[in-house]
Amino acid sequence: MGFKAYLHKVQYYETDQMGVVHHSNYIRWFEESRVDFMEQIGSNYDALERDGYISPVTSVKCDYKTMAKFGDSVYIITKLERFNGITFSLTYKVIDSVTKELRAIGESNHCFINGKGKLISLKKENTKYYGLLLETVGKEMEEF
Amino acid sequence: MGFKAYLHKVQYYETDQMGVVHHSNYIRWFEESRVDFMEQIGSNYDALERDGYISPVTSVKCDYKTMAKFGDSVYIITKLERFNGITFSLTYKVIDSVTKELRAIGESNHCFINGKGKLISLKKENTKYYGLLLETVGKEMEEF
Amino acid sequence: MGFKAYLHKVQYYETDQMGVVHHSNYIRWFEESRVDFMEQIGSNYDALERDGYISPVTSVKCDYKTMAKFGDSVYIITKLERFNGITFSLTYKVIDSVTKELRAIGESNHCFINGKGKLISLKKENTKYYGLLLETVGKEMEEF
Amino acid sequence: MGFKAYLHKVQYYETDQMGVVHHSNYIRWFEESRVDFMEQIGSNYDALERDGYISPVTSVKCDYKTMAKFGDSVYIITKLERFNGITFSLTYKVIDSVTKELRAIGESNHCFINGKGKLISLKKENTKYYGLLLETVGKEMEEF
Repeated sequence: MGFKAYLHKVQYYETDQMGVVHHSNYIRWFEESRVDFMEQIGSNYDALERDGYISPVTSVKCDYKTMAKFGDSVYIITKLERFNGITFSLTYKVIDSVTKELRAIGESNHCFINGKGKLISLKKENTKYYGLLLETVGKEMEEF
Repeated sequence: MGFKAYLHKVQYYETDQMGVVHHSNYIRWFEESRVDFMEQIGSNYDALERDGYISPVTSVKCDYKTMAKFGDSVYIITKLERFNGITFSLTYKVIDSVTKELRAIGESNHCFINGKGKLISLKKENTKYYGLLLETVGKEMEEF
Repeated sequence: MGFKAYLHKVQYYETDQMGVVHHSNYIRWFEESRVDFMEQIGSNYDALERDGYISPVTSVKCDYKTMAKFGDSVYIITKLERFNGITFSLTYKVIDSVTKELRAIGESNHCFINGKGKLISLKKENTKYYGLLLETVGKEMEEF
Repeated sequence: MGFKAYLHKVQYYETDQMGVVHHSNYIRWFEESRVDFMEQIGSNYDALERDGYISPVTSVKCDYKTMAKFGDSVYIITKLERFNGITFSLTYKVIDSVTKELRAIGESNHCFINGKGKLISLKKENTKYYGLLLETVGKEMEEF
């Protein structure tokens, strides 16, 4: 079973004076889609934080191909690329919802930290969440 | 003695496709200036939160007069309008740093809440902060 | 016929260190719902700008009642309160999508400006848009 | 002669519920410092846009090392790494203003586009700006 692509409607406040979406918002769209992806695999980030863990972004990148505009909607397609029990990588594709034109591709890396700010092994500390991530590696949201 | 006006340089990411600063950013500028104002009166919001209090915004408004643009810098002039020991009101003027043209005026209202989410009387719970606010009522940052 | 309430899922990047949605985002949510409302009445802001008009916000206010959190979704209910052919007022209610608890109420005022930056009468310059707005006065999105 | 490091005071609205600066803001800080850097080399982005050019971001990345918090100020140190007349790369270091601890490193790539949306060679179209960039390659803002 695949995952449902995440749909985002471009907001006016996301534009800049170039008349297109400000590039920093794509980093936020990655997060929107990532949260949705985590919910779809049966976990959710909100619950993870309530359990006392946080999962900070250790790096992010984005390659801009074409420009999203106000009036557009875009799909942000997330894929869990790699997970070793301690860190994980996600990749993203941003695609226009109508023309399917590629707007951007990106990647983010993450780890898990407990309430004391220490890096943890999910394999040891949260078997359920570990299992969920492990079986999701390589799977991707369906494009449309 | 007056307080020093808070200077903000307009950022590109604050613009929208109208070619001017998106109106929501003025609300953020009020916060920037408010934090600076609190530091100038000898308190600071960071310390207040470490003491276990938060001071949420209970209302905010802004009247837009003329439009700030990328390339501009603006002064945001804060004044403590009212403080009754439990709630307080601040007013704001946004002024172009060069032409002194008025960009916007605004107001925000605030209360104090403790770690349990309960409304508190600063008069009872934090005499020092109470005194600082009380003697600041009616004083305003100097415009330039 | 009523209008469909606008649904917004709270995003992680909308939170602040108080653990709730930063108050400035409600101003952006008003815009999200306003754009959606305009589309539902048969106009859309994107088309208006392509016709050479802009409709800036002349004032905005928000009263915060309770705090939206990450993990929540909210309805933002827009109503066209007043329209005189030149300026118009919208009011907003932000309501939790599950508990229906009121999060905030707000208001924004707007005018129309042409490409030369001059205030215009929509009644004279754009009969179609004028009619659409006029017949929408007093109607509100349905809450759910 | 070196360039002056760009100082940014962390704002409350830049934090998220992790209690630190939301990672997307570093991408905006890069822009703040980039604009300041361009002004320091004798150009400025505002003037470039008035001349009919835009310089979009074609890619961006950021590696997060330690977390900036509300109450902190950071230096964002920009360096023009590469410029070939058509595209250019900037690198960034984000450093705590007091402890000098490294918060993040990053990179952005850019091109130049004219009013018709076509990629241009700055060498041909704007000799002055071309010269300014060329002589700046490899130079960096001074850290403090």
